[in-house]
Amino acid sequence: MASEDLQAFLDFAILLAREGGQLILEGSKARYASQGTVFWKAGNPADLVTETDKMIEEVVKKRLKERFPQHKFIGEETVSSGEDSALTDEPTWIVDPIDGTTNFVHGFQYVAISIALTINKEPVVGVVYNPFLDEIFTASKNSGAFLNLSTRLPLSHPHPPLPLPSSLSQCLVATEYGHCRTPHVIDRKVMSIHNMVARPGDNKWSESGKNAGLVHGVRSTGSAALNLCTAAKGQIDMYWEIGPWEWDVAAGVLILGESGGIVVDAYGPDEGPADILSRRFLAVRAGSPAPGDKTSRESQLRLVKEMWDVVEQVEVSRIEARL
Amino acid sequence: MASEDLQAFLDFAILLAREGGQLILEGSKARYASQGTVFWKAGNPADLVTETDKMIEEVVKKRLKERFPQHKFIGEETVSSGEDSALTDEPTWIVDPIDGTTNFVHGFQYVAISIALTINKEPVVGVVYNPFLDEIFTASKNSGAFLNLSTRLPLSHPHPPLPLPSSLSQCLVATEYGHCRTPHVIDRKVMSIHNMVARPGDNKWSESGKNAGLVHGVRSTGSAALNLCTAAKGQIDMYWEIGPWEWDVAAGVLILGESGGIVVDAYGPDEGPADILSRRFLAVRAGSPAPGDKTSRESQLRLVKEMWDVVEQVEVSRIEARL
Repeated sequence: MASEDLQAFLDFAILLAREGGQLILEGSKARYASQGTVFWKAGNPADLVTETDKMIEEVVKKRLKERFPQHKFIGEETVSSGEDSALTDEPTWIVDPIDGTTNFVHGFQYVAISIALTINKEPVVGVVYNPFLDEIFTASKNSGAFLNLSTRLPLSHPHPPLPLPSSLSQCLVATEYGHCRTPHVIDRKVMSIHNMVARPGDNKWSESGKNAGLVHGVRSTGSAALNLCTAAKGQIDMYWEIGPWEWDVAAGVLILGESGGIVVDAYGPDEGPADILSRRFLAVRAGSPAPGDKTSRESQLRLVKEMWDVVEQVEVSRIEARL
Repeated sequence: MASEDLQAFLDFAILLAREGGQLILEGSKARYASQGTVFWKAGNPADLVTETDKMIEEVVKKRLKERFPQHKFIGEETVSSGEDSALTDEPTWIVDPIDGTTNFVHGFQYVAISIALTINKEPVVGVVYNPFLDEIFTASKNSGAFLNLSTRLPLSHPHPPLPLPSSLSQCLVATEYGHCRTPHVIDRKVMSIHNMVARPGDNKWSESGKNAGLVHGVRSTGSAALNLCTAAKGQIDMYWEIGPWEWDVAAGVLILGESGGIVVDAYGPDEGPADILSRRFLAVRAGSPAPGDKTSRESQLRLVKEMWDVVEQVEVSRIEARL
């Protein structure tokens, strides 16, 4: 598809994201004034959804149907309510009305609306908007990624970006605990984080003989979409997470990729782009090659392999959280 | 001391924080352009310090000495260089030039300068300024806490703040892994986080038979000062951390207290205010009483006791990180 066609889709997505962001802010104020209503998904007391999530998805879905009646639609709340959601090769809008609903409920300002368009199952337009910080991240395929429409990502542009770290131990890493608290999932996530922060030799909890990373630090913001965009800015080096759905990551994966970063499988061994339906992701930011490397990809893949050696296997299916 | 005297101290602290914040931004840009220089403290590859930290502390210290020659001074970098740092009853300025140095090095935008004045070992003036988000948090004893000088904290003012949660399981909690990666410290921190997120009955790793909390979520921003200010805003419910020094928390503890929140010991059993020298803190935000409670303090202390039942004992001394 020609880039001018994508630009028209991107423009409309930006307009919808701003509209949705405004509704997020209004929902937040209403919540402070009246306390609003919070629901649990599938009876899981750690998985929250609000009337604002549902209302924004309705608005965005309606506007997209009017403007692009031939396009398909996948949204977090629509899927939760049982509608068909198989991703096809057709142009498909993938929307998360509020990524970071737990943050929204508590007022923590890492909250975003995420809107992506896929063609042939690949994201070609992506917008992530955090109305609390008024930061909008945008990208269309082969046209680069931007913050607030005019600032090229990663942020250090036009200076050469900071070189990529030459080892995992020099990285600032993002990851999340997530909503799923069944022991298999949460134990191995916490074990993986322990492996990341522990000194080599001190990771006695690893049941599978994994390495320890002694990373600079681990950050958790509570939003997968914003973690990917923070990597696109260049403000974190890596982001590892198990569990996000396609609506959490479709826009962010494109934005990070267009900034020069990569998103691969959380465990490997395939070094190709991650499948947005896979719920297992490892992202690395853009940057000039680490000292001694010829290409950025060489440096990015070294970090990827070091992380694969550190994280524990967590099995997640396409079904569990939809029950 | 009369509140008008404190106001003069606060005004000067605000001026210094803005000056320091500008130097943080310039240091950050210089780092993107030239890559700057990062040092390790005490040979610990996870504990970073930069030339910008040292330079800002020098500037702030000099300006304070000129303006208030009788006052004492304790700063992170001054103490690291071996200068006497015993806190006395004398008016003492306690300064962290960059709280969140690891974030600063990586460009992650949770970075702040923290400036407090203590009298009789108690913070009476506090300023925390994040120049990346241009958010300045200020408080003086008995005069309330503010965001950007005019917005009263917690943020929901003038609406009644959201009620306090009636149990730990409804809380959004902040905590940090920190720089100290010796197994005693990092293992128990990670174990404590596992206890926070696990379902009751699933916290098999606890060596001391602690409870599990099934909290809504755990967030890590990498800045103790900003975690306290985020609680003062009302955007997180609780913040538990072992390891911060007095320069990380002196201003934030006052700001949170003046917003109506509390900061107590990380383990109890004393319910009184935490000693800022103790390196062990548990903070709870302000809010109206939880349903069924008569006072906010009753609700805050219920959350405190639930958290005490969840976290593992981590021993930290006043000496280790200064070696």
